[in-house]
Amino acid sequence: MSIIPPESNHHSVILGKDQPMPLDCGAMLSDISVSYNTYGTLNEAKTNAILICHAMTGDQYAASKQPTTGKEGWWTSMIGPGKVLDTDKYFLVCSNVLGGCMGTTGPKDIDPKTGESYGLKFPMITIADMVRTQALLQDYLEIPDWFSVVGGSMGGMQVLQWASAYSERCFSAIPIATAAKHSAQNIAFHEVGRQAVMADPDWQGGNYYNSDRVPRAGLAVARMAAHVTYLSETALHRKFGRNLQDRDNLTYGFDADFQVESYLRYQGINFVDRFDANSYLYITRAMDYFDLASDHGGSLPKAFEGSKTRFCLVSFSSDWLFPTSQSKEVVRALNAAAANVSFVNIETDKGHDAFLLDTPEMLQTMGGFLESTAKIRGIA
Amino acid sequence: MSIIPPESNHHSVILGKDQPMPLDCGAMLSDISVSYNTYGTLNEAKTNAILICHAMTGDQYAASKQPTTGKEGWWTSMIGPGKVLDTDKYFLVCSNVLGGCMGTTGPKDIDPKTGESYGLKFPMITIADMVRTQALLQDYLEIPDWFSVVGGSMGGMQVLQWASAYSERCFSAIPIATAAKHSAQNIAFHEVGRQAVMADPDWQGGNYYNSDRVPRAGLAVARMAAHVTYLSETALHRKFGRNLQDRDNLTYGFDADFQVESYLRYQGINFVDRFDANSYLYITRAMDYFDLASDHGGSLPKAFEGSKTRFCLVSFSSDWLFPTSQSKEVVRALNAAAANVSFVNIETDKGHDAFLLDTPEMLQTMGGFLESTAKIRGIA
Repeated sequence: MSIIPPESNHHSVILGKDQPMPLDCGAMLSDISVSYNTYGTLNEAKTNAILICHAMTGDQYAASKQPTTGKEGWWTSMIGPGKVLDTDKYFLVCSNVLGGCMGTTGPKDIDPKTGESYGLKFPMITIADMVRTQALLQDYLEIPDWFSVVGGSMGGMQVLQWASAYSERCFSAIPIATAAKHSAQNIAFHEVGRQAVMADPDWQGGNYYNSDRVPRAGLAVARMAAHVTYLSETALHRKFGRNLQDRDNLTYGFDADFQVESYLRYQGINFVDRFDANSYLYITRAMDYFDLASDHGGSLPKAFEGSKTRFCLVSFSSDWLFPTSQSKEVVRALNAAAANVSFVNIETDKGHDAFLLDTPEMLQTMGGFLESTAKIRGIA
Repeated sequence: MSIIPPESNHHSVILGKDQPMPLDCGAMLSDISVSYNTYGTLNEAKTNAILICHAMTGDQYAASKQPTTGKEGWWTSMIGPGKVLDTDKYFLVCSNVLGGCMGTTGPKDIDPKTGESYGLKFPMITIADMVRTQALLQDYLEIPDWFSVVGGSMGGMQVLQWASAYSERCFSAIPIATAAKHSAQNIAFHEVGRQAVMADPDWQGGNYYNSDRVPRAGLAVARMAAHVTYLSETALHRKFGRNLQDRDNLTYGFDADFQVESYLRYQGINFVDRFDANSYLYITRAMDYFDLASDHGGSLPKAFEGSKTRFCLVSFSSDWLFPTSQSKEVVRALNAAAANVSFVNIETDKGHDAFLLDTPEMLQTMGGFLESTAKIRGIA
């Protein structure tokens, strides 16, 4: 059980007790611990539930204090009374993904077969497996269908997978800054991160849980490499440029002379306190494997055939990790599948990170979509 | 002394014996070993010499077999009889940069003060220091001025520095895929690479030369991260897409399932055999520090004031490491300084790497420029 911050509704549940859950890799997983936060109240008709899917290194603390860092949730701009994801109107559920390290079963947990942490014996998981786990949670919560499934980046991959695999169980879907498959460039950056972790001798082949060493340095490098991809060149230039950090002149050394170096080092060091290195490996791999078309004979429209889900896609003009073209590819497929779809590409220089920031046009777009969809659904 | 492949004209010389060379950091360096290759013959009037400046991880073997890898030179598409850098017409000089590891003085060499390898005691060097060293070589070779100074990426930075600091000593200049300053994003990627090297315990604070361990894993990760930035997303997609490596299905593991992973691992592993990790740190830092305008009171036109050098700039449309906008910035400054400048942005999907590849439009552009400039110069 994770530490429960007093102001949140944090829960943990064991799912798949009677019936093990099949994974894409062929393995079966039973007794899956799922940790999740809820915000707001489920209405009597059970029509107002929204599932929030978190991104790669996110967690279920979307709008609550993160217990390790003590920081506010990652989507407080979006969630709260009167906000876009209005806690006076909707019942919000956000669960830690399968393979994660914040309470849902992942590589750091005890393998019941051996009595020791899984490490690399944890079965490989996919985005579809994450979604299967969320579907078990939906069953457990006795929610017949989500009013909406919402998420950005890897969260958006889950949204697309939901709408494809369980269309009848999601009334609407909001995939943000995402893609229907991971690109070669994105796989490349993930591989750099994984190799950085695995190059760290403290990683110990993944069996570091019972040692006093964890691969801090390797994971920090992985995080630094990833973090550069979350920002646009323009944003980095605007934020840091070539400004020096607490000094007037270059030091002609390897200290962090530039603010951008200092910022990245901070990002790397802080990350390792809240994230498990093996979870990082598994979750990046799940994203690499994501390819919705290939699961449907190479046809992306087929992935959405007959879908009744209402879609609202959002992309950001300066996002080079999940560029607008990839959202457009999904929109074209949804059009070909005659799905109900709206799409907005937001002009911003904030890069991929824009989905986590207070981006007014994103909030307006989502707010408008949810309001009109709630009317159709009859949510007061 | 490096191993001399029989077919090349490889030379080594000790410079700055009588007069130590001052570095930007304030240190003085004497007895600087400089290793260089030459191709072609210097004419009697000494008007046909071209200096080729290599990129970050390049070397002086521009058109000769690299002694460590046994591979052909990195610019054989450009150099040879009848080629753009015509060895029947020009006398080409390519020297290993200061701080390098192929024969020119760098951190792996013996510090005369201690009798041990410099390691991190090597003074910090800059692009201007590299160029100062090349100017010493020019004096030694008794070449009054270069017909042209040519280079891509970090080589292009040296070209710009040459044209700024020694305009009277370069008749023409061809900076390719470069910039007058390193951007925040580029500093960020370099910092990731340096942290990857320094995170490797085999780096040993830079004192690994007398041990049996070198930071192979860390340097390989650094190279992998850098390599992703050399290619465009389109090129990665075209080259690899999501193709699997020697297998029909995903293995649900951490092996290199995808071709792009296998390719990157290969790039990383091969690099460490031919490059010194400390040189990597110093040379990336030299690039980070490069900011031609800041050396001239913040004015880039001032850097080229009164320049008589004829410029030909080349950029590539899909280069996101040194984007076209940065070449345009240089062109604007040259125009403001009333310099003689031509500029071509080449449409290609090959990314930054295009300057190393057989890119026909680049060869045509440079060929045309050199031919007309040679006529002005009176080179037969």
